[in-house]
Amino acid sequence: MTERIYNFAAGPACLPIEVLEEARDNLLSLGKTGIGILEHSHRSKAYMAVHEEAEALCRELAGISEDYQVLFLQGGASLQFSMVPMNLLARDQTADYLVTGAWSQKALAEARRCGNVHIACSSEDRNFCYIPKTCTFSSRPAYVHFTSNNTIFGTEFTREPDVPAGAPLVCDASSDLFSRPLPISRYALIYGGAQKNLGPSGVTLVVIRNDLVEGGPKDLGTMLQYRTYAGEHSLYNTPPTFGIYVIGLVLKWIKKQGGLAAVEKVNRQKADKLYSYLDQSRRFRPTADRDSRSLMNVTFVTQDAALDEKFVARAKQAGLDGLKGHRSVGGMRASLYNAFPPAGVDALIQAMREFERENG
Amino acid sequence: MTERIYNFAAGPACLPIEVLEEARDNLLSLGKTGIGILEHSHRSKAYMAVHEEAEALCRELAGISEDYQVLFLQGGASLQFSMVPMNLLARDQTADYLVTGAWSQKALAEARRCGNVHIACSSEDRNFCYIPKTCTFSSRPAYVHFTSNNTIFGTEFTREPDVPAGAPLVCDASSDLFSRPLPISRYALIYGGAQKNLGPSGVTLVVIRNDLVEGGPKDLGTMLQYRTYAGEHSLYNTPPTFGIYVIGLVLKWIKKQGGLAAVEKVNRQKADKLYSYLDQSRRFRPTADRDSRSLMNVTFVTQDAALDEKFVARAKQAGLDGLKGHRSVGGMRASLYNAFPPAGVDALIQAMREFERENG
Repeated sequence: MTERIYNFAAGPACLPIEVLEEARDNLLSLGKTGIGILEHSHRSKAYMAVHEEAEALCRELAGISEDYQVLFLQGGASLQFSMVPMNLLARDQTADYLVTGAWSQKALAEARRCGNVHIACSSEDRNFCYIPKTCTFSSRPAYVHFTSNNTIFGTEFTREPDVPAGAPLVCDASSDLFSRPLPISRYALIYGGAQKNLGPSGVTLVVIRNDLVEGGPKDLGTMLQYRTYAGEHSLYNTPPTFGIYVIGLVLKWIKKQGGLAAVEKVNRQKADKLYSYLDQSRRFRPTADRDSRSLMNVTFVTQDAALDEKFVARAKQAGLDGLKGHRSVGGMRASLYNAFPPAGVDALIQAMREFERENG
Repeated sequence: MTERIYNFAAGPACLPIEVLEEARDNLLSLGKTGIGILEHSHRSKAYMAVHEEAEALCRELAGISEDYQVLFLQGGASLQFSMVPMNLLARDQTADYLVTGAWSQKALAEARRCGNVHIACSSEDRNFCYIPKTCTFSSRPAYVHFTSNNTIFGTEFTREPDVPAGAPLVCDASSDLFSRPLPISRYALIYGGAQKNLGPSGVTLVVIRNDLVEGGPKDLGTMLQYRTYAGEHSLYNTPPTFGIYVIGLVLKWIKKQGGLAAVEKVNRQKADKLYSYLDQSRRFRPTADRDSRSLMNVTFVTQDAALDEKFVARAKQAGLDGLKGHRSVGGMRASLYNAFPPAGVDALIQAMREFERENG
């Protein structure tokens, strides 16, 4: 078999090898059913068990009570950018957005189509390299929306923003959901594409409080109402069965690691090691403010575009793939999601050390 | 390895074994990349090649010209039930629907939310067991919508309905797309969930004429406008990469079989053999009118609910799975999509013969 390399991609991203092996072994027959996981009817007993286990593990790992629905949707966070205001923002209401990067901006743009928006804070003045410390909210926001981790800019909220009493907190947690414990009672709705910490692309996890489901408008397209999914355990129509299956496998793997607190610990160790190296380096420099640094996406530059390119190419030759930064920041980005192995961080630091020696 | 059984499920459904084997072998490393197919960034060269090949094979096999966009969406046909009228039906316009089953009814219900609807024909009077021979259209329909194959009721259009000159023809072909040659120039828009003939659930194939993309409204949510997908080759946001990969493998398999005409020939042979048996049986009876029979989903009953149940259980024991009919029709349903092996039809007929002998 081809040797696996270190995949620093921002998503779709690396998955635990045990998960890939189990998926591989069930592709021609799920267990002893004689029917592969891709081929099982979504109404079959075998698939129903997969589906229910994925939901149950979400609830167990994140401590999600029956006050919330755990839903599997499609369309990625991008469809949620529209569904959230379509369901929660009436034409005459105002929604508050914390603008900390490209994804917040896109979410904001979709909300503008539905009602009024208010920018509670923004870090655009310094190319989104920090998380603002204070917010100014509108008088009675329909909800407050933030992006917990900014994949492109390498920043992350260390805790939930304080919002006006009673204002539902909504979060796009696409790139850090299930990378650390989730204080779910702080949230009214939290969503994320699976393709960073949870599984393959093509499934969106939505955790939504029951009152928001019930209060949603009924004149939207059926597939655009949360109640459609809530009422049928995400089985109103054919769900992305394989993606949900892989999410279940990843959640079992997280549980085996010791749960969300345990994966957070490892995630912190990986990121701390890399930032420590960057902080003492005379060639590489992290781009995010120290108190806003993401544990998931570490962005850094040499401050010389030609050298950045040279390093990315050199690293690729050494089996470190996907390090090229997003064009909005330039330089490099090392994505260190749950499944990214600590040894890959060591290999990256080693490659940087060598590069620094040669290009001091 | 566990022996595979015959899977008659209506979707998700059986896939060609060569396809499953190739997917399995690329789960830990796509080719020699050292990164599994689930883990490749959607912007990586390796994935881009997969994505482009899937689109190119769609075009090649179905003869789809540059006048059309070939798009990969999410949300299944059910989301298209909404997106079609949201994009093509203005509030003061009328869309005509051919109502031939549960899916047509659902599509019609979503259109009602957007504008006026006109029922051009309906076979509800006899529980949708036939395809109406004539339609009555409204004076200037914004479009005409039909469901080419009715998965639940076992009926199928043998050719496209004749529509008023200039009226765009829109088709939900979820359960027969790519099961036979596609006279694409007859269509303005044709869509289908992949999980019957094309791949796993979680990808919707949409083929849409350029003028319909360009003419669509711009005030819809970004992910609800066809132009979002058309402008970025279905890569505006992260697509369901694995599903598109499997579709590409299935299309390569179809090409190897000789293309759409060749798979249609096999599909016809499989269905003809089963209907021939049913027509002479004194125990089993097909439920669809002879001239409306589906090649994809063969529905039949014993006319005795207890015997139906007994047969389904007996068949399951013999390794024939997924034969229970939909509750709206009762009895049995044998789905014979592209990948369903001819030997499985022989096994089913054999099981019916034995059952008939014992329960004559």
